[in-house]
Amino acid sequence: MADIKLTTLCYIRSKGNYLMLYRNKKKEDPNGGKWIGVGGHFELCESPDECLCREVAEETGLKLTSWQSRGLITFCFDGWGCEYMHLFTADSFEGKITDCDEGELAWIPESELMSLPMWEGDRIFLRLIAEDASYFNLKLCYNKDGVLTDAILNGEVLAV
Amino acid sequence: MADIKLTTLCYIRSKGNYLMLYRNKKKEDPNGGKWIGVGGHFELCESPDECLCREVAEETGLKLTSWQSRGLITFCFDGWGCEYMHLFTADSFEGKITDCDEGELAWIPESELMSLPMWEGDRIFLRLIAEDASYFNLKLCYNKDGVLTDAILNGEVLAV
Repeated sequence: MADIKLTTLCYIRSKGNYLMLYRNKKKEDPNGGKWIGVGGHFELCESPDECLCREVAEETGLKLTSWQSRGLITFCFDGWGCEYMHLFTADSFEGKITDCDEGELAWIPESELMSLPMWEGDRIFLRLIAEDASYFNLKLCYNKDGVLTDAILNGEVLAV
Repeated sequence: MADIKLTTLCYIRSKGNYLMLYRNKKKEDPNGGKWIGVGGHFELCESPDECLCREVAEETGLKLTSWQSRGLITFCFDGWGCEYMHLFTADSFEGKITDCDEGELAWIPESELMSLPMWEGDRIFLRLIAEDASYFNLKLCYNKDGVLTDAILNGEVLAV
């Protein structure tokens, strides 16, 4: 298959806070100016959890000691391709946070998450996580302007 | 990323039986002579559940009306590449079974599943399904002779 990306995204949680990354360090970052979780692209033949643990270590300095698979997000970007993102949460880790070369890391109280600048679709899966939804398949389609045009949860079309 | 495959596999269940496919119709089928579930390869930008429903319809004639994500299997094949297989079960469907051009479909009692010729790794995830394990990440590595050499479940190495 041509032109697909496989990625992980993780929300690390502690004492009611989410570890979020404000993307402000990379040039021409498609996530520039937005807050996202930590994660990144699969290396060859990595499993989702291997990618997860490597990316979290690289971006935060933390070693995850347990994690949970929360869902699979299929992103469709008009004229650009698609990305399959394995979504995790993690509530247990070791180590201390280090600087991240992709942005600023900050612990954000759960009650303040939704007021951050972020992709519209991220609000959908953050809400599902907050509701402790069972593992889900969520498809999110964005147009060329970065506007969310479609969202399909476990085969059901959501209003966007 | 080069040389990766994205697939689905589904065990459709009814009255204590699993719908299994005996692969005996395709030339040079890597699954030839083995029993597997139904499923296949993603088409461009399909989500896992879109691929699932299309493949089940194509291979069995059935329309799934509900399904459950059970795990993600990362296959590593020595010298060949890797495959990410989204594993599902389904207990609700409509329609009647049609002929499948990839093999013979048969309802197999759960108690007889493990006596069928199948990939060794399939026995691991069939057991996890029978135990009603929560969503799992399982990595399975095979050598060039098709022998299972490594199995890693949620980051823990299993004896093989």
